[in-house]
Amino acid sequence: MTDTARIEALENQVADLARRLTVREDELDVRKLQHLYGYLIDKCMYNETVDLFTDDAEVRFFGGVWKGKEGARRLYVERFQKRFTHGNNGPIDGFLLDHPQLQDIITIDPDGVTAHARARSMMQAGRHKDYLTPDNPMMANPRQWWEGGIYENTYKKVDGVWRIHVLNYFPHWHADFDKGWAYTEAEYVPFPKVLYPEDPSGPDALIEDHWLWPTHKLLPFHMPHPVTGKEMVAERWQGDIDRVKAKADAQAAE
Amino acid sequence: MTDTARIEALENQVADLARRLTVREDELDVRKLQHLYGYLIDKCMYNETVDLFTDDAEVRFFGGVWKGKEGARRLYVERFQKRFTHGNNGPIDGFLLDHPQLQDIITIDPDGVTAHARARSMMQAGRHKDYLTPDNPMMANPRQWWEGGIYENTYKKVDGVWRIHVLNYFPHWHADFDKGWAYTEAEYVPFPKVLYPEDPSGPDALIEDHWLWPTHKLLPFHMPHPVTGKEMVAERWQGDIDRVKAKADAQAAE
Amino acid sequence: MTDTARIEALENQVADLARRLTVREDELDVRKLQHLYGYLIDKCMYNETVDLFTDDAEVRFFGGVWKGKEGARRLYVERFQKRFTHGNNGPIDGFLLDHPQLQDIITIDPDGVTAHARARSMMQAGRHKDYLTPDNPMMANPRQWWEGGIYENTYKKVDGVWRIHVLNYFPHWHADFDKGWAYTEAEYVPFPKVLYPEDPSGPDALIEDHWLWPTHKLLPFHMPHPVTGKEMVAERWQGDIDRVKAKADAQAAE
Repeated sequence: MTDTARIEALENQVADLARRLTVREDELDVRKLQHLYGYLIDKCMYNETVDLFTDDAEVRFFGGVWKGKEGARRLYVERFQKRFTHGNNGPIDGFLLDHPQLQDIITIDPDGVTAHARARSMMQAGRHKDYLTPDNPMMANPRQWWEGGIYENTYKKVDGVWRIHVLNYFPHWHADFDKGWAYTEAEYVPFPKVLYPEDPSGPDALIEDHWLWPTHKLLPFHMPHPVTGKEMVAERWQGDIDRVKAKADAQAAE
Repeated sequence: MTDTARIEALENQVADLARRLTVREDELDVRKLQHLYGYLIDKCMYNETVDLFTDDAEVRFFGGVWKGKEGARRLYVERFQKRFTHGNNGPIDGFLLDHPQLQDIITIDPDGVTAHARARSMMQAGRHKDYLTPDNPMMANPRQWWEGGIYENTYKKVDGVWRIHVLNYFPHWHADFDKGWAYTEAEYVPFPKVLYPEDPSGPDALIEDHWLWPTHKLLPFHMPHPVTGKEMVAERWQGDIDRVKAKADAQAAE
Repeated sequence: MTDTARIEALENQVADLARRLTVREDELDVRKLQHLYGYLIDKCMYNETVDLFTDDAEVRFFGGVWKGKEGARRLYVERFQKRFTHGNNGPIDGFLLDHPQLQDIITIDPDGVTAHARARSMMQAGRHKDYLTPDNPMMANPRQWWEGGIYENTYKKVDGVWRIHVLNYFPHWHADFDKGWAYTEAEYVPFPKVLYPEDPSGPDALIEDHWLWPTHKLLPFHMPHPVTGKEMVAERWQGDIDRVKAKADAQAAE
């Protein structure tokens, strides 16, 4: 092979390596971004949280959609910071809202500037008995619960830096610390019903197909099955739950 | 240096970079595969789970070994899908079996087509009080528990795609949601004792050296210590536990 | 472009790829190191834990600082191994101390031999009722608790292998399994007060600014905000907690 041919082969190989490496750098950087989101939310650093979003961001959260970076600010700063931390940008004593960030599967689109992640959290939340604030309806009683949820987020690279484009968090179960997930009451968390601006920190739109445990469905995956290449779709059991519940009632009455 | 010498140096460097990058791509892809396993198992998508395995797979689970992809199908579809979800390939209301996938350490063998992972889960499992099915012995009572376990899995790259070769899951503790791990009764989970085909969804073989909390041993690591290069072996305390338990009984009787 | 010019361009590109790939290899290897730390601590393999540290290591833990690899040995082997496992280098029945390692954000310094990680654990710890040792004050009663904490560690690459340089673990909350984080008593874990050598396994120094839940502060981040480039600093609420507590007392007395 001539030198020129070898150079051409090298140029192709190097371009291919650069492309492959960039994909993995992006995966790892999106992962760090999502992890940082968790650390910031843990510690009620809502201003820094909002700075993670794109200008055209969307936050899908507990049945509401907050649109644009201004919507994100309304949710995190106007709603959470006021309700949870007396307006403080940082943790306050006696208030816990830990969001461990777990189990990411990150996919970079061929455009190199769009990313998707499936990820999850398993939260610890509550208010300590010695730090209640009776004038704040959210903070007037000791309360403690576990929460599990799944993210299907998208991200965009803007000016060379990955940012959150759509934060789509879907809680999959709640459990009172005392009672557990076998005894969670329906509508454990009340969803927002009033839109902005009627509710000054409310969402721009509602999500109609929300559900909460003990209802249990699949949050769709952003990617196909890696072996079969097929979409991963859940069947929905149409069994006679009324019949089995009637049976259970009858047994209990015996 | 001549152009030709520089080209040769570049060819060597590029080959080395390609080799190194491939190892990391493989680590990250095996990680995604194991994470997907968790998401599929969470949501009782047993058909898609079976598709993650090689034809010569092995599932080592609660004292049994299910062999081949057919064995995996027997375990996930014939056993779990029938017992847990009324044959539904997907989640059903009131049944929780979350498997967060955590803390992977993945090693790619020099052959480039075999991988090993140590990983763990910390599960939330149970049946909600409003969704009992009295005609299903596994689902007739509300029940809820935590479970921690460790994986030491192997994977194979077949036709360019990583698949699970040996899924070796070893639960390390169970805890009733109400009582906790300080009060777990021995044999918290009954292990299968009857082999296939006598049990139509039973294992092909039993694992003799199984144990369950409060017994506590080391599941061996697939890799050596990264600093010393030595195998990491646990000592086994041979203390006089009978004596200390007798002492405890005597104290309790005082 | 001449062959020589193309070769020079390739040499620059290859050098750049090598530099970028090395950073990601280092991130992934530090991650494995921290994950292994978790697995070893889980299983009370204290000798292998100490081997993960540099000679000039530092362990910052529960208000104490243990200095040098000898300090690490004093903490893990002289203190923990004696108190927890009767001197056994490995797990013992009935003693649980699981440290899942979660949510790493790893930064490699430009020098290529120093790394920083923010990471977290969410622990399960306790002693099973059937395995008490009345002659060991740490192990005489059944006890079980959850613990959440954050690491801000540094690592050094010595002789080509990453090692832990500063292990800085800061517990953020404790919860009795029975009562939960809303009812944690102050000073849930007593901090060491007596220095080495007066206490033969004590720390070399004390950390003055320690705190435990329900106090709640930010453990500083090692890195700036990825979008704004600014330091991430928490505000500290100076609200009239005495007033709100007095109000709560008044309400309770009604």
